[in-house]
Amino acid sequence: MATLPLLDDADLSPEARAVFDDIRATRGSDFVNNFWRALAHDPALLKATWERLKTVMGPGTLDPLTKELVYMAVSITNSCPYCAHSHTAAAKAKGMTEAQYGEFLAVLAMASQTNALATALQVKVDDAFLA
Amino acid sequence: MATLPLLDDADLSPEARAVFDDIRATRGSDFVNNFWRALAHDPALLKATWERLKTVMGPGTLDPLTKELVYMAVSITNSCPYCAHSHTAAAKAKGMTEAQYGEFLAVLAMASQTNALATALQVKVDDAFLA
Amino acid sequence: MATLPLLDDADLSPEARAVFDDIRATRGSDFVNNFWRALAHDPALLKATWERLKTVMGPGTLDPLTKELVYMAVSITNSCPYCAHSHTAAAKAKGMTEAQYGEFLAVLAMASQTNALATALQVKVDDAFLA
Amino acid sequence: MATLPLLDDADLSPEARAVFDDIRATRGSDFVNNFWRALAHDPALLKATWERLKTVMGPGTLDPLTKELVYMAVSITNSCPYCAHSHTAAAKAKGMTEAQYGEFLAVLAMASQTNALATALQVKVDDAFLA
Amino acid sequence: MATLPLLDDADLSPEARAVFDDIRATRGSDFVNNFWRALAHDPALLKATWERLKTVMGPGTLDPLTKELVYMAVSITNSCPYCAHSHTAAAKAKGMTEAQYGEFLAVLAMASQTNALATALQVKVDDAFLA
Amino acid sequence: MATLPLLDDADLSPEARAVFDDIRATRGSDFVNNFWRALAHDPALLKATWERLKTVMGPGTLDPLTKELVYMAVSITNSCPYCAHSHTAAAKAKGMTEAQYGEFLAVLAMASQTNALATALQVKVDDAFLA
Repeated sequence: MATLPLLDDADLSPEARAVFDDIRATRGSDFVNNFWRALAHDPALLKATWERLKTVMGPGTLDPLTKELVYMAVSITNSCPYCAHSHTAAAKAKGMTEAQYGEFLAVLAMASQTNALATALQVKVDDAFLA
Repeated sequence: MATLPLLDDADLSPEARAVFDDIRATRGSDFVNNFWRALAHDPALLKATWERLKTVMGPGTLDPLTKELVYMAVSITNSCPYCAHSHTAAAKAKGMTEAQYGEFLAVLAMASQTNALATALQVKVDDAFLA
Repeated sequence: MATLPLLDDADLSPEARAVFDDIRATRGSDFVNNFWRALAHDPALLKATWERLKTVMGPGTLDPLTKELVYMAVSITNSCPYCAHSHTAAAKAKGMTEAQYGEFLAVLAMASQTNALATALQVKVDDAFLA
Repeated sequence: MATLPLLDDADLSPEARAVFDDIRATRGSDFVNNFWRALAHDPALLKATWERLKTVMGPGTLDPLTKELVYMAVSITNSCPYCAHSHTAAAKAKGMTEAQYGEFLAVLAMASQTNALATALQVKVDDAFLA
Repeated sequence: MATLPLLDDADLSPEARAVFDDIRATRGSDFVNNFWRALAHDPALLKATWERLKTVMGPGTLDPLTKELVYMAVSITNSCPYCAHSHTAAAKAKGMTEAQYGEFLAVLAMASQTNALATALQVKVDDAFLA
Repeated sequence: MATLPLLDDADLSPEARAVFDDIRATRGSDFVNNFWRALAHDPALLKATWERLKTVMGPGTLDPLTKELVYMAVSITNSCPYCAHSHTAAAKAKGMTEAQYGEFLAVLAMASQTNALATALQVKVDDAFLA
């Protein structure tokens, strides 16, 4: 289904293998998902993407589940099936309850509908909202 | 700038005025932003949109700032200038610090870039991510 | 505001002028909107775009207002301010009433919200919907 | 393929069952499509979505096929496969002929192309189009 | 999986057959991909689309691979799986190396991320960028 | 117009100033555009974005204008006005002629239209296109 064959561990270049090792160590799991197996064809891009992801999703002033919900919202709005699946799974792994998922969906649907209305009406931005 | 003139308080129908009264009471502020002033041309749509928004963004299992960050993420990904401005302002009003805004932006940028890569590569969804 | 200066009638090449003449004759109006004045820098692209538009929006099995509402729906969903403005104006010129505009907005908002939910949930297409 | 298992009739909560009953009564058909079976995990969201859909797509000043074509246009432009399939099927059920489908596709393609050009050229909105 | 059955050569109308003949002659290959087999239900739309594609992707001032990379970028950003697959295959057929594909992906990811940031921040266009 | 005030040189933190110095040295120009002046509120995000951009848009196997055209295509398809303006200006600075711009626009319009058709028809990917 991909535009490039997904690489098995045995097919990795040394540079790609080092990134996979870090993914496994950081996540405390042997599982490496298909996204990285496709990116592994270009070790430099693989490394740059993973390093940045690790920094961005690491500890900070927003809690991990909030970050993951933002990631889900972007992924769904971008109509990316792989991303919707993988980040919904990640949010569940980070503790998202079924009630929280329902509320997330309600906010997502609300935002999508008011976005469409604001764009249709081409409403001028209120002065109060400008920095 | 809008496709319909924005309605002043004096131009509202009784049905629209009742919605504006509820917006003011709910928010504890006299300010009613332009989005509602454009929607006020259609009181039924105005009322349905506001009632649903009040329910969705009200108390629940996700805290108010998290809901607002999801709203922002959808609005920005949908390329809606009005929505980006108004919901960034709303998040600040709900306590988003400058550091949190920076982290939000970093997650947004990260998600946008991995979404593009996953779509480009047309990666097959891992079985582990399916419900 | 454009990436190319908008061309006045006096600046048109003979090929672009011929297209402008046809736009005016077809629409029965002297007004030529800015979209065509930007495209006029490339007379071949201007001509191909206009000729196809004239065919597509001309008489057929869908009535003119229905076609314009579809055009509006695409334009708004694509987050194109120029297109939202110009095709909303065109729909009004073709007889869209304020009540119809309100219903259009309600359908647009409904579709945007269920689209977001279906993408979030990654629902499998029912066999009944496949051709 | 979904992020949540699709619920069979036997798995429904009483609140979800009541919504399914209304879907069946309103449509005069026993078939309930997968979208509702995924939403049924959150009966409140299921009910709010269905109630609003029933109102919006019910009788009004736009005929049912026109509303469905607008719904299709939004769904396709939002790149939602489930939505494209289900609303194309719905339009056929509401009488869309093959000739009308062809014209719809031509308008969709035209709008998509001029939207891209207007966004590329960043054309300023004509004063004539402002409300 | 399509909303219309894909047409085999034996099912084509004479008008559609003539377009298929031209596709085969132009490409020097007997293979006609599914996109054209779906469009063939509407011979006028099929012909208009193919004729324009042949002109646009034919010889000009941009080399064929550059045009194909622009086509890929649009297709991926539009979240169109069919288009991403078919135009990535076309770029490979036109000589895109694995290193070039990697660089293309890096530019795509970069653009997606800065686009998201610029939209989030609603940055004012610099005067230096206006025509 | 932004969600944050644009920072003048005098307002920069030492970390942000160092990035601005590198932007100026790399581009051989004193001009620093507004995008960076908004990002400068978060020096870590500013630095990460600029460093990656410098690497990605630097020398490689695709020529600089091709990379810029891909960047433009993504930016326009993402409906980002700032990005469309700034990257069209960048492409002109890298030598894009008016004829090349016209061809770029034609490819962009073509891709946008066939993308819409492929999504509408939900065409199954040909086996020949799978890796």
